[in-house]
Amino acid sequence: MTDSPIAAQPSRSRPPALPEGGMRVVALGGVGEVGRNMTVFEHDDRLLIVDCGVLFPEDQQPGVDLILPDFRAIESRLDEVDALVLTHGHEDHIGAVPFLLRQRPDLPVVGSRFTLALLAAKCREHRLNPTLVQVVEGERRTFGPFDCEFFAVNHSIPDALAVAIRTGAGLVLHTGDIKLDQLPLDGRLTDLAGFSRLGDEGVDLFLVDSTNAEVPGFVVPEREIGPVLDRVIGAATQRVIVACFASHVHRVQQVLDVAKRNGRRVALVGRSMVRNMGVAAELGLLEVPEGLFVDLDEAMNLPEREVLFVSTGSQGEPLSALSRMARGEHRQISIREGDTVVLASSLIPGNETAVWGVVNGLVRLGAAVVHQGNAKVHVSGHAPAGELLFLYNAVRPSNVMPVHGEWRHLRANAALAVQTGVPADHVVIAEDGVVVDLVDGKASISGRVEVGHVYVDGLSVGDVGESTLSDRLVLGEGGFIAITVAVDSQSGRAVSVPAVSGRGFSDDPKALDDVVSLVEMELSRTEAEGITDTHRIAQSVRRVVGRWVAATYRRRPMIVPTVIPV
Amino acid sequence: MTDSPIAAQPSRSRPPALPEGGMRVVALGGVGEVGRNMTVFEHDDRLLIVDCGVLFPEDQQPGVDLILPDFRAIESRLDEVDALVLTHGHEDHIGAVPFLLRQRPDLPVVGSRFTLALLAAKCREHRLNPTLVQVVEGERRTFGPFDCEFFAVNHSIPDALAVAIRTGAGLVLHTGDIKLDQLPLDGRLTDLAGFSRLGDEGVDLFLVDSTNAEVPGFVVPEREIGPVLDRVIGAATQRVIVACFASHVHRVQQVLDVAKRNGRRVALVGRSMVRNMGVAAELGLLEVPEGLFVDLDEAMNLPEREVLFVSTGSQGEPLSALSRMARGEHRQISIREGDTVVLASSLIPGNETAVWGVVNGLVRLGAAVVHQGNAKVHVSGHAPAGELLFLYNAVRPSNVMPVHGEWRHLRANAALAVQTGVPADHVVIAEDGVVVDLVDGKASISGRVEVGHVYVDGLSVGDVGESTLSDRLVLGEGGFIAITVAVDSQSGRAVSVPAVSGRGFSDDPKALDDVVSLVEMELSRTEAEGITDTHRIAQSVRRVVGRWVAATYRRRPMIVPTVIPV
Repeated sequence: MTDSPIAAQPSRSRPPALPEGGMRVVALGGVGEVGRNMTVFEHDDRLLIVDCGVLFPEDQQPGVDLILPDFRAIESRLDEVDALVLTHGHEDHIGAVPFLLRQRPDLPVVGSRFTLALLAAKCREHRLNPTLVQVVEGERRTFGPFDCEFFAVNHSIPDALAVAIRTGAGLVLHTGDIKLDQLPLDGRLTDLAGFSRLGDEGVDLFLVDSTNAEVPGFVVPEREIGPVLDRVIGAATQRVIVACFASHVHRVQQVLDVAKRNGRRVALVGRSMVRNMGVAAELGLLEVPEGLFVDLDEAMNLPEREVLFVSTGSQGEPLSALSRMARGEHRQISIREGDTVVLASSLIPGNETAVWGVVNGLVRLGAAVVHQGNAKVHVSGHAPAGELLFLYNAVRPSNVMPVHGEWRHLRANAALAVQTGVPADHVVIAEDGVVVDLVDGKASISGRVEVGHVYVDGLSVGDVGESTLSDRLVLGEGGFIAITVAVDSQSGRAVSVPAVSGRGFSDDPKALDDVVSLVEMELSRTEAEGITDTHRIAQSVRRVVGRWVAATYRRRPMIVPTVIPV
Repeated sequence: MTDSPIAAQPSRSRPPALPEGGMRVVALGGVGEVGRNMTVFEHDDRLLIVDCGVLFPEDQQPGVDLILPDFRAIESRLDEVDALVLTHGHEDHIGAVPFLLRQRPDLPVVGSRFTLALLAAKCREHRLNPTLVQVVEGERRTFGPFDCEFFAVNHSIPDALAVAIRTGAGLVLHTGDIKLDQLPLDGRLTDLAGFSRLGDEGVDLFLVDSTNAEVPGFVVPEREIGPVLDRVIGAATQRVIVACFASHVHRVQQVLDVAKRNGRRVALVGRSMVRNMGVAAELGLLEVPEGLFVDLDEAMNLPEREVLFVSTGSQGEPLSALSRMARGEHRQISIREGDTVVLASSLIPGNETAVWGVVNGLVRLGAAVVHQGNAKVHVSGHAPAGELLFLYNAVRPSNVMPVHGEWRHLRANAALAVQTGVPADHVVIAEDGVVVDLVDGKASISGRVEVGHVYVDGLSVGDVGESTLSDRLVLGEGGFIAITVAVDSQSGRAVSVPAVSGRGFSDDPKALDDVVSLVEMELSRTEAEGITDTHRIAQSVRRVVGRWVAATYRRRPMIVPTVIPV
């Protein structure tokens, strides 16, 4: 089909060797999903990595703290990596760097000043001391065979970069996360002029942020939020709490300016908010009016109409200050009738229940809650369809590979590329692990490497896998019933009364009363049959209890028999 | 504060006796939450119940099938209930009726023809044979001291009713679920004229659907979906699958009409879709063109451009036909490049991840997926702010009690009532269990009765409670580590090697290798201290293993020690 983009097929074998002079592109995360962005570029037997972020788990991954990109495909080749380029400082682009550095501590990490400052803070927590290579837009640096040029990009965090990579295989441009605010708060525009110049030179492969490709039109400028905040906060007569992302320096800047204009002093709430705004202020990216900041204790002593809190917790994180306020459990701030809370933030898919739970809690206590559903207090950081068309028309790429998005986003982005004139068979819809080769100016899918989910749970990485998660899902749904019995290892005869206990099964203390005699009967049977193997006895017990619970309760708890030979 | 509505306070004691001649209103579900609607009216020592629905569980209620209203507050008074009035046939209004009928089988159940037909089907599954009292809009019926008048209401299901209840305490109007489509597909308008007549008479208390109170403006007429479907389905060259709610007869009607116009025959997929459309057709609420329906097997033999499937599964239910298609696991229908899937449905909060998962699966297989985010293929069934203002201005109530909604919806609805001129101190924001008394023409909060969550899990009701759920959450997050050991009951000496096993803890078979010696050491210690009580030994084991796992893994699995005396 030449009128459809080239889409990855579910099954595909390992790719052949990369033809001499070609460029290979493999996403180890971030394509076919939103998060853990990591793309590996290969040329002339050398590798360059762009971004290395984390993904936050969903319901089907209970107990998991973070999901990392799957490094296996390059694990044996880490010495061939010439650099790790970071496009910006969001967690889904830098969060997994410490885990990669553990395996290759001397890997040069390339990024802008703010990006590297956030990374450095993160690495200190991991007790790592990375080799940082600071770059600035307009700069050109070579890492092995990869000649990299950096371009200013506008996004929901300062100092973001796109990267153009020149090799013998051609010119590749990766947008990172991008939007085209034409009146950015800091005046730092996405360098569309630079992209046009690259277009003149000829871009062989264009990797484009797909997050908002399904959304028509354009993003309202960030600066239009200021007047809305002015109106909301100007009208407030009591306490005001504004929650937003801890890395959104420009959003916080506007809140500070509004606070200043309205005679309110500001207290930052939340560890990451305090840390990031400290970094931003130090680098001159956040302008803090003299004497505006107060600490939380001071703030509590100010009149209510003279204070404003800037807080984390905009995604309904249960341990955040805002969630605690919503439950009436915050140590210092108790919400009351007439307070104003502003969620100047997106609602990340998957967090809806948690966020609305916090909103309802605050409303119940009497707060007026302003959020993107009832006021223009948030704008997205990603280019929607209208802006993506500008990008395609500036860059005029020969080949396109949508990145950063779920399948629905990738398809929508691919359709936009085709609309601007990129031949459909030069648009490649890949997903994590799909191998895209750029050879003789044409991109195509040559195979697939295995990419799974790598889970971080507590202190260790990778030991929690699909089998553990599937057990957790069973246990979370139905709990378990444990049956323990000691048997004489010679005769197979039970020498104790079966101990039966359930957890997560029922609040009724008598719920499992019938199980003891059921198990005793089964043990008599196995003994009579001369079965002494504890494993076989356990299996018999599991089977009879499982059947009983299905028939009696129509539930499927995990059945855990333990037979101890004595 | 007279300028704010009267809002329920978190703590409040049991109410005093209802003053003679007054009316008491208590929601046992559905106020402060979306779902399990059930409101109890009391007058002259008699009770009338409006609706008795279920709520679907959230993440924090794992393994639960359904949540029922809490009947405890009326359990001892079921004989005093004169009737159960059902406003319409949605699950959140009728789903818990069988559970109430189990406790009071002869309770008269009052409703419209379609509502009672759906209830009857449900009761057959529960092997119940209820006393049904069919009513029609315009009708007036007396149940004990409750003189009920029924009004036609437009909603996303046919044959919905509002109910006006006249007693010595005054006139109460309950909207049920409502919207004001001025061009309804079946011509059956919400009876605003009737409401106005009640307003002339004087409505003392108005209970109003709050679901969409935060949404400005008006709902687009249902019939505007038809032309959109015409365009989408008319352009399709292969198979078309339309998913929507199994009770949304008017939506399905439009799909059937579009199919007919486009020369496609229709197969219904999904048990509830087949059942409900059968009922609707039988009652003349669904017009099925002669020969339009085919069964699934026939449909599979028709040319792809001559068939259309109407399916359940629009909320991403994992076992639904649509989810199976998205995973490529449907027995008959396999999606391929060029197929069209339409989700002509809402996205119920909490289902986002599941629904987008299904959409991504379908898109990955090549389908074009049309949903309310990219085409006007769904309209809401609930009145937004603009329509609610019409209601308030028609009814001109003396007192208002927002129902059906979370706190944010109730507050928004209360604000609308105040804007239309209802005095703020005559607007009562309650929640489940809050007792609202209408006495001498004034509504106020007089106390609170306990209302908890009643969980259905498998065959039993109520035995799964908060303690079981909290265990499930712990198990789901971290799994468990079981340690079993047999001890001599005289000496407390271990007579077996401790059996240690973890489930949902780690994929690494060596993860718990260190635990055996740890436990053995602890058992030597307890033996040396002369401890023979198995409970105390178990506690010691739990403590040392818990500490070890926290220090080694920074995780919190459930620790389950079993000490068997032999």
